Amino acid sequence: MEGYVQFLALLVSALLVGFVSVIFALVWVFQYRGGLSWDGSAQEFNWHPVLIITGFVFIQGIAIIVYRLPWTWKCSKLLMKSIHAGLNTIAMILAIVSVVAAFDFHNASSIPNMYSLHSWIGLAAVIFYALQLFLGFAVFLLPFAPVSLRAALMPIHVFSGLTIFATVIATALMGITEKLIFSLQNPSYSASPPEATFVNCLGLLLVIFGALVLWMASRPHWKRPPEENLKVLQPIGGTPEDTEAESTATDGSNANKSELKMNSEAARKQNFKLDEAGQRSTM
Amino acid sequence: MEGYVQFLALLVSALLVGFVSVIFALVWVFQYRGGLSWDGSAQEFNWHPVLIITGFVFIQGIAIIVYRLPWTWKCSKLLMKSIHAGLNTIAMILAIVSVVAAFDFHNASSIPNMYSLHSWIGLAAVIFYALQLFLGFAVFLLPFAPVSLRAALMPIHVFSGLTIFATVIATALMGITEKLIFSLQNPSYSASPPEATFVNCLGLLLVIFGALVLWMASRPHWKRPPEENLKVLQPIGGTPEDTEAESTATDGSNANKSELKMNSEAARKQNFKLDEAGQRSTM
Repeated sequence: MEGYVQFLALLVSALLVGFVSVIFALVWVFQYRGGLSWDGSAQEFNWHPVLIITGFVFIQGIAIIVYRLPWTWKCSKLLMKSIHAGLNTIAMILAIVSVVAAFDFHNASSIPNMYSLHSWIGLAAVIFYALQLFLGFAVFLLPFAPVSLRAALMPIHVFSGLTIFATVIATALMGITEKLIFSLQNPSYSASPPEATFVNCLGLLLVIFGALVLWMASRPHWKRPPEENLKVLQPIGGTPEDTEAESTATDGSNANKSELKMNSEAARKQNFKLDEAGQRSTM
Repeated sequence: MEGYVQFLALLVSALLVGFVSVIFALVWVFQYRGGLSWDGSAQEFNWHPVLIITGFVFIQGIAIIVYRLPWTWKCSKLLMKSIHAGLNTIAMILAIVSVVAAFDFHNASSIPNMYSLHSWIGLAAVIFYALQLFLGFAVFLLPFAPVSLRAALMPIHVFSGLTIFATVIATALMGITEKLIFSLQNPSYSASPPEATFVNCLGLLLVIFGALVLWMASRPHWKRPPEENLKVLQPIGGTPEDTEAESTATDGSNANKSELKMNSEAARKQNFKLDEAGQRSTM
Protein backbone atom coordinates (compact mmCIF):
# COMPACT_ATOMS: atom_id res chain seq x y z
CA MET A 1 0.00 0.00 0.00
CA GLU A 2 1.33 3.39 -1.06
CA GLY A 3 1.94 5.69 1.93
CA TYR A 4 1.13 2.98 4.49
CA VAL A 5 2.87 4.72 7.40
CA GLN A 6 1.14 8.01 6.61
CA PHE A 7 -2.19 6.18 6.45
CA LEU A 8 -1.55 4.51 9.82
CA ALA A 9 -0.59 7.82 11.42
CA LEU A 10 -3.79 9.45 10.14
CA LEU A 11 -5.90 6.48 11.21
CA VAL A 12 -4.48 6.54 14.74
CA SER A 13 -4.98 10.33 14.87
CA ALA A 14 -8.60 10.02 13.71
CA LEU A 15 -9.39 7.24 16.21
CA LEU A 16 -7.73 9.23 18.98
CA VAL A 17 -9.52 12.50 18.14
CA GLY A 18 -12.84 10.66 17.76
CA PHE A 19 -12.38 8.80 21.04
CA VAL A 20 -11.35 11.97 22.90
CA SER A 21 -14.47 13.69 21.48
CA VAL A 22 -16.67 10.98 23.04
CA ILE A 23 -14.81 11.38 26.37
CA PHE A 24 -15.26 15.18 26.14
CA ALA A 25 -19.02 14.72 25.59
CA LEU A 26 -19.22 12.47 28.66
CA VAL A 27 -17.14 14.85 30.80
CA TRP A 28 -19.37 17.73 29.64
CA VAL A 29 -22.62 16.07 30.74
CA PHE A 30 -21.24 14.48 33.95
CA GLN A 31 -18.98 17.32 35.10
CA TYR A 32 -21.15 20.29 34.11
CA ARG A 33 -24.70 19.12 33.27
CA GLY A 34 -25.73 16.71 36.04
CA GLY A 35 -25.16 13.38 34.28
CA LEU A 36 -27.58 11.07 32.46
CA SER A 37 -31.08 9.80 33.20
CA TRP A 38 -34.30 8.97 31.28
CA ASP A 39 -37.06 10.92 33.02
CA GLY A 40 -37.83 13.88 30.76
CA SER A 41 -35.39 16.09 32.67
CA ALA A 42 -32.35 18.00 31.39
CA GLN A 43 -30.40 14.83 32.25
CA GLU A 44 -32.42 12.94 29.65
CA PHE A 45 -31.54 15.64 27.12
CA ASN A 46 -27.86 14.96 27.93
CA TRP A 47 -28.16 11.65 26.04
CA HIS A 48 -28.58 13.78 22.91
CA PRO A 49 -24.98 15.13 22.59
CA VAL A 50 -23.46 11.92 23.99
CA LEU A 51 -25.23 9.61 21.51
CA ILE A 52 -24.86 11.94 18.54
CA ILE A 53 -21.10 12.29 19.07
CA THR A 54 -20.65 8.56 19.81
CA GLY A 55 -22.89 7.21 17.06
CA PHE A 56 -23.63 9.81 14.42
CA VAL A 57 -20.09 11.25 14.37
CA PHE A 58 -17.55 8.69 15.67
CA ILE A 59 -19.13 5.39 14.54
CA GLN A 60 -20.29 6.88 11.22
CA GLY A 61 -16.73 8.13 10.64
CA ILE A 62 -15.33 4.62 11.26
CA ALA A 63 -17.98 3.12 8.95
CA ILE A 64 -16.80 5.47 6.19
CA ILE A 65 -13.12 4.49 6.39
CA VAL A 66 -13.57 0.78 7.16
CA TYR A 67 -12.88 -0.18 3.50
CA ARG A 68 -9.59 1.72 3.63
CA LEU A 69 -8.00 -0.55 6.27
CA PRO A 70 -5.44 -2.52 4.22
CA TRP A 71 -5.57 -5.56 6.54
CA THR A 72 -9.25 -6.01 5.58
CA TRP A 73 -8.47 -6.23 1.86
CA LYS A 74 -8.11 -10.00 2.09
CA CYS A 75 -11.58 -10.27 3.66
CA SER A 76 -14.48 -10.86 1.26
CA LYS A 77 -16.27 -7.80 -0.09
CA LEU A 78 -19.55 -9.15 1.30
CA LEU A 79 -18.10 -9.26 4.83
CA MET A 80 -16.81 -5.68 4.52
CA LYS A 81 -20.15 -4.48 3.14
CA SER A 82 -21.87 -6.11 6.12
CA ILE A 83 -19.51 -4.41 8.59
CA HIS A 84 -20.03 -1.04 6.80
CA ALA A 85 -23.83 -1.50 6.88
CA GLY A 86 -23.74 -2.79 10.48
CA LEU A 87 -21.76 0.18 11.80
CA ASN A 88 -24.08 2.59 9.97
CA THR A 89 -27.10 0.80 11.43
CA ILE A 90 -25.70 1.17 14.96
CA ALA A 91 -25.05 4.89 14.26
CA MET A 92 -28.61 5.25 12.94
CA ILE A 93 -30.14 3.64 16.05
CA LEU A 94 -28.07 5.83 18.39
CA ALA A 95 -29.07 8.93 16.37
CA ILE A 96 -32.77 8.03 16.64
CA VAL A 97 -32.54 7.39 20.40
CA SER A 98 -30.72 10.72 20.82
CA VAL A 99 -33.46 12.56 18.90
CA VAL A 100 -36.12 10.88 21.08
CA ALA A 101 -34.23 12.09 24.18
CA ALA A 102 -34.28 15.68 22.89
CA PHE A 103 -38.00 15.52 22.00
CA ASP A 104 -38.86 13.93 25.38
CA PHE A 105 -37.05 16.70 27.23
CA HIS A 106 -38.71 19.41 25.11
CA ASN A 107 -42.17 17.92 25.63
CA ALA A 108 -41.67 17.55 29.41
CA SER A 109 -40.47 21.17 29.66
CA SER A 110 -43.03 22.60 27.19
CA ILE A 111 -40.27 23.72 24.85
CA PRO A 112 -41.43 23.71 21.19
CA ASN A 113 -39.87 21.09 18.89
CA MET A 114 -38.44 21.71 15.45
CA TYR A 115 -38.18 25.50 15.51
CA SER A 116 -34.40 25.89 15.14
CA LEU A 117 -32.12 25.59 12.11
CA HIS A 118 -30.25 22.91 14.11
CA SER A 119 -33.42 20.82 14.33
CA TRP A 120 -34.36 21.35 10.66
CA ILE A 121 -30.96 20.34 9.30
CA GLY A 122 -30.51 17.63 11.94
CA LEU A 123 -33.83 15.95 11.09
CA ALA A 124 -33.06 16.24 7.37
CA ALA A 125 -29.69 14.54 8.04
CA VAL A 126 -31.37 11.67 9.93
CA ILE A 127 -33.95 11.19 7.13
CA PHE A 128 -31.30 11.24 4.38
CA TYR A 129 -29.12 8.89 6.46
CA ALA A 130 -32.02 6.42 6.80
CA LEU A 131 -32.69 6.66 3.06
CA GLN A 132 -28.99 6.16 2.31
CA LEU A 133 -28.89 3.11 4.59
CA PHE A 134 -32.04 1.59 3.03
CA LEU A 135 -30.91 2.21 -0.56
CA GLY A 136 -27.37 1.01 0.22
CA PHE A 137 -28.78 -2.19 1.70
CA ALA A 138 -31.19 -2.80 -1.18
CA VAL A 139 -28.81 -1.96 -4.02
CA PHE A 140 -25.33 -2.95 -2.81
CA LEU A 141 -25.78 -5.58 -0.10
CA LEU A 142 -28.72 -7.63 -1.44
CA PRO A 143 -27.77 -9.57 -4.58
CA PHE A 144 -30.72 -8.45 -6.75
CA ALA A 145 -29.70 -5.07 -8.22
CA PRO A 146 -28.22 -5.20 -11.74
CA VAL A 147 -24.58 -4.21 -12.09
CA SER A 148 -25.48 -1.21 -14.25
CA LEU A 149 -27.67 0.19 -11.44
CA ARG A 150 -24.91 -0.36 -8.86
CA ALA A 151 -22.40 1.36 -11.12
CA ALA A 152 -24.74 4.31 -11.67
CA LEU A 153 -25.58 4.73 -7.99
CA MET A 154 -22.13 4.20 -6.45
CA PRO A 155 -20.75 7.75 -7.04
CA ILE A 156 -23.99 9.17 -5.63
CA HIS A 157 -23.81 6.79 -2.63
CA VAL A 158 -20.22 7.83 -1.87
CA PHE A 159 -20.87 11.56 -2.30
CA SER A 160 -24.11 11.61 -0.32
CA GLY A 161 -22.47 9.55 2.45
CA LEU A 162 -19.62 12.05 2.82
CA THR A 163 -21.99 15.03 2.53
CA ILE A 164 -24.33 13.65 5.21
CA PHE A 165 -21.30 13.04 7.47
CA ALA A 166 -20.11 16.65 7.01
CA THR A 167 -23.66 17.92 7.55
CA VAL A 168 -23.95 15.92 10.78
CA ILE A 169 -20.80 17.59 12.10
CA ALA A 170 -22.10 21.03 11.09
CA THR A 171 -25.37 20.23 12.88
CA ALA A 172 -23.45 19.13 16.00
CA LEU A 173 -21.62 22.49 15.99
CA MET A 174 -24.98 24.32 15.81
CA GLY A 175 -26.28 22.13 18.65
CA ILE A 176 -23.25 22.93 20.83
CA THR A 177 -23.78 26.66 20.13
CA GLU A 178 -27.48 26.46 21.09
CA LYS A 179 -26.89 24.41 24.23
CA LEU A 180 -24.12 26.67 25.54
CA ILE A 181 -26.19 29.82 24.96
CA PHE A 182 -29.30 28.36 26.63
CA SER A 183 -27.71 26.56 29.57
CA LEU A 184 -24.94 28.97 30.57
CA GLN A 185 -26.47 31.70 32.72
CA ASN A 186 -24.53 33.66 35.27
CA PRO A 187 -21.81 33.42 34.09
CA SER A 188 -23.13 33.47 30.55
CA TYR A 189 -21.49 31.96 27.45
CA SER A 190 -19.99 35.37 26.59
CA ALA A 191 -18.11 35.44 29.92
CA SER A 192 -16.21 32.30 28.79
CA PRO A 193 -16.62 30.13 31.92
CA PRO A 194 -14.59 26.87 31.94
CA GLU A 195 -17.52 24.87 30.51
CA ALA A 196 -17.72 27.19 27.48
CA THR A 197 -14.02 26.85 26.71
CA PHE A 198 -14.13 23.08 27.27
CA VAL A 199 -17.12 22.53 24.96
CA ASN A 200 -15.70 24.89 22.31
CA CYS A 201 -12.67 22.57 22.30
CA LEU A 202 -15.04 19.63 21.78
CA GLY A 203 -16.40 21.46 18.72
CA LEU A 204 -12.87 21.91 17.35
CA LEU A 205 -12.17 18.20 17.89
CA LEU A 206 -15.27 17.30 15.83
CA VAL A 207 -14.07 19.48 12.94
CA ILE A 208 -10.59 17.89 13.07
CA PHE A 209 -12.12 14.38 13.20
CA GLY A 210 -14.31 15.19 10.17
CA ALA A 211 -11.37 16.54 8.16
CA LEU A 212 -9.21 13.46 8.95
CA VAL A 213 -11.97 11.03 7.91
CA LEU A 214 -12.75 12.95 4.71
CA TRP A 215 -9.04 13.09 3.79
CA MET A 216 -8.60 9.33 4.27
CA ALA A 217 -11.83 8.56 2.40
CA SER A 218 -10.99 10.75 -0.59
CA ARG A 219 -7.40 9.61 -1.38
CA PRO A 220 -7.68 7.47 -4.54
CA HIS A 221 -4.55 5.40 -3.75
CA TRP A 222 -5.98 4.31 -0.37
CA LYS A 223 -9.08 2.75 -1.90
CA ARG A 224 -9.65 -0.97 -1.54
CA PRO A 225 -8.14 -2.49 -4.71
CA PRO A 226 -10.56 -3.84 -7.33
CA GLU A 227 -11.53 -7.52 -6.93
CA GLU A 228 -9.32 -8.48 -9.89
CA ASN A 229 -6.24 -7.65 -7.79
CA LEU A 230 -7.61 -9.39 -4.74
CA LYS A 231 -7.71 -12.68 -6.62
CA VAL A 232 -3.93 -12.75 -6.21
CA LEU A 233 -4.55 -12.81 -2.47
CA GLN A 234 -7.46 -15.26 -2.74
CA PRO A 235 -6.61 -17.58 -5.63
CA ILE A 236 -9.07 -20.35 -4.65
CA GLY A 237 -12.30 -19.69 -6.56
CA GLY A 238 -14.19 -16.46 -7.11
CA THR A 239 -16.88 -14.69 -5.14
CA PRO A 240 -20.12 -13.30 -6.55
CA GLU A 241 -18.66 -9.81 -6.04
CA ASP A 242 -15.90 -10.53 -8.57
CA THR A 243 -18.45 -10.46 -11.35
CA GLU A 244 -19.70 -7.10 -10.10
CA ALA A 245 -16.26 -5.49 -10.01
CA GLU A 246 -15.22 -6.86 -13.39
CA SER A 247 -18.49 -5.88 -15.00
CA THR A 248 -18.09 -2.39 -13.67
CA ALA A 249 -14.54 -2.08 -14.85
CA THR A 250 -15.63 -3.10 -18.35
CA ASP A 251 -18.86 -1.14 -18.34
CA GLY A 252 -17.52 1.15 -21.04
CA SER A 253 -19.33 2.78 -23.92
CA ASN A 254 -16.63 3.92 -26.35
CA ALA A 255 -13.46 2.79 -24.64
CA ASN A 256 -11.12 0.47 -26.45
CA LYS A 257 -11.59 -2.95 -24.86
CA SER A 258 -7.92 -3.83 -25.20
CA GLU A 259 -7.09 -0.75 -23.11
CA LEU A 260 -9.36 -1.99 -20.37
CA LYS A 261 -7.57 -5.32 -20.16
CA MET A 262 -4.33 -3.70 -19.06
CA ASN A 263 -2.81 -5.07 -15.92
CA SER A 264 -4.96 -3.97 -13.01
CA GLU A 265 -2.17 -2.84 -10.69
CA ALA A 266 -0.57 -0.81 -13.46
CA ALA A 267 -4.01 0.59 -14.17
CA ARG A 268 -4.43 1.67 -10.56
CA LYS A 269 -1.06 3.42 -10.64
CA GLN A 270 -1.98 5.00 -13.94
CA ASN A 271 -5.36 5.96 -12.51
CA PHE A 272 -3.74 7.63 -9.52
CA LYS A 273 -1.21 9.47 -11.61
CA LEU A 274 -3.83 10.71 -14.05
CA ASP A 275 -6.07 11.64 -11.16
CA GLU A 276 -3.26 13.71 -9.73
CA ALA A 277 -2.70 15.23 -13.14
CA GLY A 278 -6.40 15.94 -13.38
CA GLN A 279 -6.33 17.66 -10.04
CA ARG A 280 -3.38 19.73 -11.18
CA SER A 281 -5.20 20.64 -14.33
CA THR A 282 -7.93 22.22 -12.23
CA MET A 283 -5.56 24.78 -10.81
CA MET B 1 -17.99 17.03 -22.40
CA GLU B 2 -19.65 14.01 -20.82
CA GLY B 3 -22.99 14.90 -19.16
CA TYR B 4 -22.92 18.50 -20.45
CA VAL B 5 -26.67 19.06 -19.98
CA GLN B 6 -26.54 17.67 -16.43
CA PHE B 7 -23.57 19.93 -15.67
CA LEU B 8 -25.40 22.99 -17.04
CA ALA B 9 -28.51 22.16 -15.00
CA LEU B 10 -26.42 21.86 -11.82
CA LEU B 11 -24.50 25.04 -12.60
CA VAL B 12 -27.70 27.04 -13.13
CA SER B 13 -29.16 25.54 -9.92
CA ALA B 14 -26.03 26.44 -7.92
CA LEU B 15 -25.93 30.00 -9.28
CA LEU B 16 -29.64 30.41 -8.59
CA VAL B 17 -29.44 29.00 -5.03
CA GLY B 18 -26.32 31.09 -4.31
CA PHE B 19 -27.90 34.26 -5.71
CA VAL B 20 -31.15 33.68 -3.80
CA SER B 21 -29.08 33.19 -0.61
CA VAL B 22 -27.53 36.64 -1.08
CA ILE B 23 -31.00 38.13 -1.67
CA PHE B 24 -32.28 36.36 1.47
CA ALA B 25 -29.40 37.82 3.51
CA LEU B 26 -30.26 41.32 2.23
CA VAL B 27 -33.99 40.86 2.90
CA TRP B 28 -33.13 39.61 6.40
CA VAL B 29 -31.11 42.69 7.35
CA PHE B 30 -33.34 45.27 5.57
CA GLN B 31 -36.74 43.77 6.37
CA TYR B 32 -36.11 42.57 9.93
CA ARG B 33 -32.83 44.09 11.27
CA GLY B 34 -32.93 47.79 10.36
CA GLY B 35 -30.63 47.78 7.30
CA LEU B 36 -26.94 48.59 6.97
CA SER B 37 -24.67 51.33 8.35
CA TRP B 38 -21.09 51.73 9.63
CA ASP B 39 -21.40 53.34 13.06
CA GLY B 40 -20.77 50.55 15.59
CA SER B 41 -24.49 49.84 15.85
CA ALA B 42 -26.40 46.59 15.19
CA GLN B 43 -26.75 47.88 11.62
CA GLU B 44 -22.97 47.74 11.26
CA PHE B 45 -23.06 44.15 12.48
CA ASN B 46 -25.55 43.43 9.66
CA TRP B 47 -22.69 43.71 7.16
CA HIS B 48 -21.35 40.52 8.75
CA PRO B 49 -23.96 38.03 7.41
CA VAL B 50 -24.37 39.95 4.13
CA LEU B 51 -20.64 39.97 3.29
CA ILE B 52 -20.00 36.43 4.54
CA ILE B 53 -22.81 34.99 2.40
CA THR B 54 -21.90 37.13 -0.62
CA GLY B 55 -18.14 36.69 -0.45
CA PHE B 56 -17.13 33.78 1.73
CA VAL B 57 -19.92 31.48 0.51
CA PHE B 58 -21.19 32.56 -2.94
CA ILE B 59 -18.02 33.99 -4.52
CA GLN B 60 -15.81 31.29 -2.96
CA GLY B 61 -18.20 28.66 -4.39
CA ILE B 62 -17.90 30.18 -7.87
CA ALA B 63 -14.10 30.34 -7.51
CA ILE B 64 -14.08 26.60 -6.77
CA ILE B 65 -16.03 25.57 -9.87
CA VAL B 66 -14.61 28.14 -12.31
CA TYR B 67 -12.22 25.53 -13.82
CA ARG B 68 -15.20 23.24 -14.52
CA LEU B 69 -16.87 25.60 -17.01
CA PRO B 70 -16.24 23.88 -20.36
CA TRP B 71 -16.30 27.13 -22.35
CA THR B 72 -13.21 28.27 -20.40
CA TRP B 73 -11.17 25.23 -21.42
CA LYS B 74 -9.87 27.04 -24.48
CA CYS B 75 -8.62 29.90 -22.28
CA SER B 76 -5.02 29.67 -21.07
CA LYS B 77 -4.42 27.98 -17.73
CA LEU B 78 -2.68 31.15 -16.49
CA LEU B 79 -5.81 33.21 -17.18
CA MET B 80 -8.00 30.69 -15.35
CA LYS B 81 -5.59 30.57 -12.41
CA SER B 82 -5.73 34.38 -12.24
CA ILE B 83 -9.55 34.36 -12.24
CA HIS B 84 -9.56 31.64 -9.54
CA ALA B 85 -7.08 33.62 -7.41
CA GLY B 86 -8.89 36.91 -8.11
CA LEU B 87 -12.29 35.59 -7.01
CA ASN B 88 -10.76 34.10 -3.87
CA THR B 89 -9.02 37.41 -3.12
CA ILE B 90 -12.35 39.26 -3.41
CA ALA B 91 -13.96 36.67 -1.09
CA MET B 92 -11.06 37.09 1.37
CA ILE B 93 -11.40 40.90 1.43
CA LEU B 94 -15.18 40.69 1.97
CA ALA B 95 -14.64 38.14 4.77
CA ILE B 96 -12.13 40.41 6.52
CA VAL B 97 -14.43 43.46 6.25
CA SER B 98 -17.29 41.37 7.63
CA VAL B 99 -15.18 40.26 10.61
CA VAL B 100 -14.21 43.91 11.27
CA ALA B 101 -17.92 44.82 11.25
CA ALA B 102 -18.66 42.14 13.87
CA PHE B 103 -15.72 43.23 16.08
CA ASP B 104 -16.67 46.93 15.76
CA PHE B 105 -20.23 46.19 16.86
CA HIS B 106 -19.05 44.02 19.79
CA ASN B 107 -16.58 46.68 20.93
CA ALA B 108 -19.17 49.49 20.68
CA SER B 109 -21.69 47.41 22.68
CA SER B 110 -19.14 46.01 25.18
CA ILE B 111 -19.82 42.45 24.02
CA PRO B 112 -16.74 40.23 24.41
CA ASN B 113 -15.05 39.04 21.21
CA MET B 114 -13.97 35.49 20.40
CA TYR B 115 -15.86 33.62 23.11
CA SER B 116 -18.12 31.46 20.92
CA LEU B 117 -17.44 28.30 18.94
CA HIS B 118 -18.69 30.26 15.90
CA SER B 119 -15.94 32.85 16.38
CA TRP B 120 -13.23 30.23 17.04
CA ILE B 121 -13.98 28.16 13.94
CA GLY B 122 -14.78 31.26 11.86
CA LEU B 123 -11.44 32.92 12.66
CA ALA B 124 -9.61 29.61 12.02
CA ALA B 125 -11.37 29.42 8.61
CA VAL B 126 -10.27 32.99 7.73
CA ILE B 127 -6.67 32.24 8.77
CA PHE B 128 -6.53 28.96 6.82
CA TYR B 129 -8.17 30.68 3.84
CA ALA B 130 -5.52 33.42 3.87
CA LEU B 131 -2.78 30.78 4.13
CA GLN B 132 -4.35 28.79 1.28
CA LEU B 133 -4.53 31.94 -0.86
CA PHE B 134 -0.92 32.90 -0.12
CA LEU B 135 0.44 29.38 -0.74
CA GLY B 136 -1.71 28.96 -3.86
CA PHE B 137 -0.37 32.25 -5.22
CA ALA B 138 3.25 31.45 -4.39
CA VAL B 139 3.26 27.84 -5.58
CA PHE B 140 0.77 27.66 -8.45
CA LEU B 141 0.48 31.18 -9.89
CA LEU B 142 4.04 32.46 -9.67
CA PRO B 143 6.38 30.61 -12.04
CA PHE B 144 9.10 29.76 -9.50
CA ALA B 145 7.92 26.58 -7.74
CA PRO B 146 9.36 23.32 -9.12
CA VAL B 147 6.90 20.95 -10.78
CA SER B 148 7.50 18.28 -8.12
CA LEU B 149 6.41 20.70 -5.37
CA ARG B 150 3.29 21.69 -7.35
CA ALA B 151 2.42 18.02 -7.89
CA ALA B 152 2.89 17.22 -4.20
CA LEU B 153 0.85 20.19 -2.98
CA MET B 154 -2.04 20.05 -5.48
CA PRO B 155 -4.08 17.29 -3.75
CA ILE B 156 -3.64 19.13 -0.43
CA HIS B 157 -4.62 22.46 -2.06
CA VAL B 158 -7.79 20.92 -3.53
CA PHE B 159 -8.78 19.09 -0.33
CA SER B 160 -8.10 22.01 1.99
CA GLY B 161 -9.98 24.36 -0.37
CA LEU B 162 -13.09 22.18 -0.29
CA THR B 163 -12.78 21.59 3.46
CA ILE B 164 -12.44 25.32 4.19
CA PHE B 165 -15.50 25.97 1.98
CA ALA B 166 -17.56 23.35 3.90
CA THR B 167 -16.28 24.74 7.22
CA VAL B 168 -17.30 28.27 6.21
CA ILE B 169 -20.84 27.06 5.53
CA ALA B 170 -20.92 25.22 8.89
CA THR B 171 -19.72 28.43 10.57
CA ALA B 172 -22.43 30.46 8.81
CA LEU B 173 -25.04 28.03 10.16
CA MET B 174 -23.68 28.52 13.69
CA GLY B 175 -23.73 32.28 13.16
CA ILE B 176 -27.37 32.20 12.02
CA THR B 177 -28.25 30.12 15.10
CA GLU B 178 -26.50 32.59 17.44
CA LYS B 179 -27.98 35.68 15.81
CA LEU B 180 -31.56 34.36 15.86
CA ILE B 181 -31.31 33.33 19.52
CA PHE B 182 -29.81 36.67 20.59
CA SER B 183 -31.90 39.05 18.49
CA LEU B 184 -35.33 37.42 18.61
CA GLN B 185 -37.00 38.44 21.88
CA ASN B 186 -40.72 38.54 22.34
CA PRO B 187 -41.55 36.55 20.28
CA SER B 188 -38.45 34.43 20.82
CA TYR B 189 -36.77 32.08 18.32
CA SER B 190 -38.66 29.12 19.85
CA ALA B 191 -42.01 30.78 19.00
CA SER B 192 -41.07 30.58 15.28
CA PRO B 193 -41.85 34.17 14.22
CA PRO B 194 -41.67 34.85 10.44
CA GLU B 195 -38.04 36.03 10.70
CA ALA B 196 -37.00 32.71 12.29
CA THR B 197 -38.62 30.64 9.55
CA PHE B 198 -37.23 32.92 6.83
CA VAL B 199 -33.65 32.77 8.13
CA ASN B 200 -33.86 29.00 8.74
CA CYS B 201 -34.68 28.75 5.02
CA LEU B 202 -31.58 30.82 4.29
CA GLY B 203 -29.57 28.23 6.27
CA LEU B 204 -31.06 25.41 4.18
CA LEU B 205 -30.18 27.28 0.97
CA LEU B 206 -26.54 27.55 2.11
CA VAL B 207 -26.38 23.78 2.69
CA ILE B 208 -27.90 23.07 -0.75
CA PHE B 209 -25.47 25.54 -2.40
CA GLY B 210 -22.53 23.84 -0.66
CA ALA B 211 -23.65 20.36 -1.74
CA LEU B 212 -24.11 21.47 -5.38
CA VAL B 213 -20.65 23.08 -5.53
CA LEU B 214 -18.95 20.09 -3.88
CA TRP B 215 -20.70 17.66 -6.27
CA MET B 216 -19.61 19.63 -9.35
CA ALA B 217 -16.06 20.03 -8.02
CA SER B 218 -15.61 16.34 -7.20
CA ARG B 219 -16.82 14.69 -10.46
CA PRO B 220 -13.64 13.47 -12.21
CA HIS B 221 -15.17 13.66 -15.72
CA TRP B 222 -15.98 17.36 -15.30
CA LYS B 223 -12.39 18.35 -14.62
CA ARG B 224 -10.60 20.67 -17.03
CA PRO B 225 -8.78 18.34 -19.44
CA PRO B 226 -4.98 18.09 -19.13
CA GLU B 227 -3.01 20.58 -21.25
CA GLU B 228 -2.01 17.81 -23.67
CA ASN B 229 -5.64 17.63 -24.84
CA LEU B 230 -6.01 21.38 -24.96
CA LYS B 231 -3.22 21.57 -27.52
CA VAL B 232 -5.75 20.23 -30.00
CA LEU B 233 -7.78 23.35 -29.31
CA GLN B 234 -4.71 25.64 -29.26
CA PRO B 235 -2.26 24.20 -31.79
CA ILE B 236 -0.16 27.39 -32.14
CA GLY B 237 2.73 27.13 -29.69
CA GLY B 238 2.78 25.96 -26.11
CA THR B 239 2.38 27.74 -22.82
CA PRO B 240 4.62 27.39 -19.76
CA GLU B 241 1.78 25.45 -18.08
CA ASP B 242 2.04 22.67 -20.66
CA THR B 243 5.34 21.62 -19.20
CA GLU B 244 3.78 21.58 -15.77
CA ALA B 245 0.89 19.35 -16.80
CA GLU B 246 3.07 16.96 -18.76
CA SER B 247 5.63 16.76 -16.02
CA THR B 248 2.95 15.93 -13.54
CA ALA B 249 1.42 13.25 -15.70
CA THR B 250 4.83 11.63 -16.03
CA ASP B 251 5.93 12.21 -12.46
CA GLY B 252 5.90 8.47 -11.82
CA SER B 253 8.20 6.37 -9.73
CA ASN B 254 7.61 2.78 -10.89
CA ALA B 255 5.11 3.24 -13.68
CA ASN B 256 5.91 1.96 -17.13
CA LYS B 257 6.69 5.03 -19.24
CA SER B 258 5.15 3.53 -22.35
CA GLU B 259 1.87 3.18 -20.47
CA LEU B 260 1.97 6.85 -19.63
CA LYS B 261 2.27 7.84 -23.24
CA MET B 262 -1.14 6.42 -24.12
CA ASN B 263 -3.51 8.77 -25.89
CA SER B 264 -4.61 11.36 -23.40
CA GLU B 265 -8.33 11.28 -24.20
CA ALA B 266 -8.40 7.50 -23.97
CA ALA B 267 -6.48 7.85 -20.72
CA ARG B 268 -9.09 10.22 -19.34
CA LYS B 269 -11.87 7.79 -20.25
CA GLN B 270 -9.87 4.96 -18.72
CA ASN B 271 -9.17 7.13 -15.69
CA PHE B 272 -12.87 7.86 -15.23
CA LYS B 273 -13.90 4.24 -15.64
CA LEU B 274 -11.24 3.02 -13.23
CA ASP B 275 -12.19 5.75 -10.82
CA GLU B 276 -15.79 4.57 -10.96
CA ALA B 277 -14.58 1.00 -10.50
CA GLY B 278 -12.46 2.15 -7.59
CA GLN B 279 -15.46 3.81 -5.99
CA ARG B 280 -17.43 0.59 -6.49
CA SER B 281 -14.64 -1.39 -4.91
CA THR B 282 -15.04 0.62 -1.74
CA MET B 283 -18.57 -0.64 -1.22
